[in-house]
Amino acid sequence: MSEDNRVWRLRNRPTGNITDETLSLEIENIPEPKDGECLFRLNYLSLDPTNRIWMSDQVQYMPPVAIGDPMRGVVCGTVLKSKSTAFKEGDVVSGIGSWSDFQIGTPESVGLLGEVGTTSIMDAFATLALVGPSAYFCLLDIGVPKAGETVVVSAAAGAVGSIVGQIAKIKGCHVVGLAGSDEKCRWIKKELGFDEAINYKTENIPEALAHACPNGIDIYFDNVGGAILDECLKLMNLYGRIPTCGLISQYNSTEPVPGPYNYGLILMHRLKIQGFIILDYLDRFAEANAAIIKWMSEGKIKIRLDVSDGLESAVKSVKKLYTGENTGKLIVRVKDV
Amino acid sequence: MSEDNRVWRLRNRPTGNITDETLSLEIENIPEPKDGECLFRLNYLSLDPTNRIWMSDQVQYMPPVAIGDPMRGVVCGTVLKSKSTAFKEGDVVSGIGSWSDFQIGTPESVGLLGEVGTTSIMDAFATLALVGPSAYFCLLDIGVPKAGETVVVSAAAGAVGSIVGQIAKIKGCHVVGLAGSDEKCRWIKKELGFDEAINYKTENIPEALAHACPNGIDIYFDNVGGAILDECLKLMNLYGRIPTCGLISQYNSTEPVPGPYNYGLILMHRLKIQGFIILDYLDRFAEANAAIIKWMSEGKIKIRLDVSDGLESAVKSVKKLYTGENTGKLIVRVKDV
Repeated sequence: MSEDNRVWRLRNRPTGNITDETLSLEIENIPEPKDGECLFRLNYLSLDPTNRIWMSDQVQYMPPVAIGDPMRGVVCGTVLKSKSTAFKEGDVVSGIGSWSDFQIGTPESVGLLGEVGTTSIMDAFATLALVGPSAYFCLLDIGVPKAGETVVVSAAAGAVGSIVGQIAKIKGCHVVGLAGSDEKCRWIKKELGFDEAINYKTENIPEALAHACPNGIDIYFDNVGGAILDECLKLMNLYGRIPTCGLISQYNSTEPVPGPYNYGLILMHRLKIQGFIILDYLDRFAEANAAIIKWMSEGKIKIRLDVSDGLESAVKSVKKLYTGENTGKLIVRVKDV
Repeated sequence: MSEDNRVWRLRNRPTGNITDETLSLEIENIPEPKDGECLFRLNYLSLDPTNRIWMSDQVQYMPPVAIGDPMRGVVCGTVLKSKSTAFKEGDVVSGIGSWSDFQIGTPESVGLLGEVGTTSIMDAFATLALVGPSAYFCLLDIGVPKAGETVVVSAAAGAVGSIVGQIAKIKGCHVVGLAGSDEKCRWIKKELGFDEAINYKTENIPEALAHACPNGIDIYFDNVGGAILDECLKLMNLYGRIPTCGLISQYNSTEPVPGPYNYGLILMHRLKIQGFIILDYLDRFAEANAAIIKWMSEGKIKIRLDVSDGLESAVKSVKKLYTGENTGKLIVRVKDV
């Protein structure tokens, strides 16, 4: 075990895909916590679509990562030293940190991971730190699904999408997922209980959606934007809801991206489109996480991880999000707890 | 006074602007009411942006007008004969009818105009039949303005927009209107009390909006879509609302119209966009109309009519909506009550 502190720093804002010039891995000193801070060692790093937003300087919901700064990430680590009454040595914490072995935490940036029941720390972190509460609040608070309604989810084999579909099933909905491979489609249908799955890369999307949604769409849970949003708009029922949790199809774009061509249906069908950022719900995480841990323990929510080992694998791994190569929630395992 | 029954019938769906080939004026027999129906004479015809939607066969909120059918319109008339217990001879009714001198009404299609206080029947019909309740519910139910917030209204000198701005002022908001001439801008600012007015045809819209909205935009009341929507999106504050009451910039388009290029800000700024059609609020008209009649009598809501005389003027008059030539709510006065 090396005591080097490896730090991924942002070097260039990507103008399309993330490349090897986007970030560089540096060897640096281990930082010293000041009063009110703790030092923790990174155990697990979550890789998420929003990482690409933070690398850019587009208008966003937090300040972009500055050129030269450590790359921001959702992290899980173990406290080594504490000069804060909020933490003690050995505590497992999670929150917003950086892509580095040793990091400074504050009560504002990280919190105790909390009770995980029979779930492993890695699985619990992967589910509860970000994607579980995102799925829970965005679907339930904005989508407000009712039993019998049809819910369509894009990026349905992704970390948020797969949980959204499972919660929608728990709520008694007809659930249709779009995913990018036959294997992913098989998984969400056979393992997760989605009613229908559409391979958006090989199937005719309008026909497949119409077939899978004979009663139209009441909720389209949007993770991607773009052409799939446009096709779903055409099938939205009156008073349909489009909780917007991500627009991954356009994060890598270097050109202005037009909004949906079927925008006019928002008016005609009295649709509601509403954006969602999980940061607005930090004070309600306990509510979501209690429900999700319970559903996980009952086997009603399953999660699949796509784990890469070693901090050095982070860049190679995060690129998978934009090619759809990942088969589950991306986690970098730096050092098991 | 002729007892001819003149009927405007839809002949061709417009592929862009309404032309002289779109409708034809026919002389026909006066219809006979059946049981449950009444016959009424048209007094006033309201011309509204939605007329253009009804002429098209795009997906819409009511069936399109069929080729050959009388053109649909919002009407005010006087009952001549009644075979319905809902009406008696001499009643003044308003609701959904057609562009014709003599029409059949049912309790489903028209209702009594109701108490108008000191307001003239033409003014009351022009305000209460459609545009007043539209402004009231779309702003208050979807926009939910709070005192001190900034409300931007497009088509602000239009029938709905001018009332929206005045209600927003009543609610204590900073109100900015966009209109298409200096005269319209002067009117909404000097006569209606808007805080700022922008001539979108001559001013630099992004600069003028930024100047008029130093605290950003909390509610953008959208009547037009298109470029103005895109510019407003850029200035929307976190949790901003975009009640969508019309998209007139695209009704005449013959090409697919892209949605807003700044669609991604819906996510980043957690915006809510929601479509509104007044038909959903028919059972709450009394609430809106009581409030509006009260505000009108207190001088807090003013309306300006653009009246043309004679049913034959309807086509020439409705075209003004799409060129911005009208200076107020378009009304065709067929025969005063």
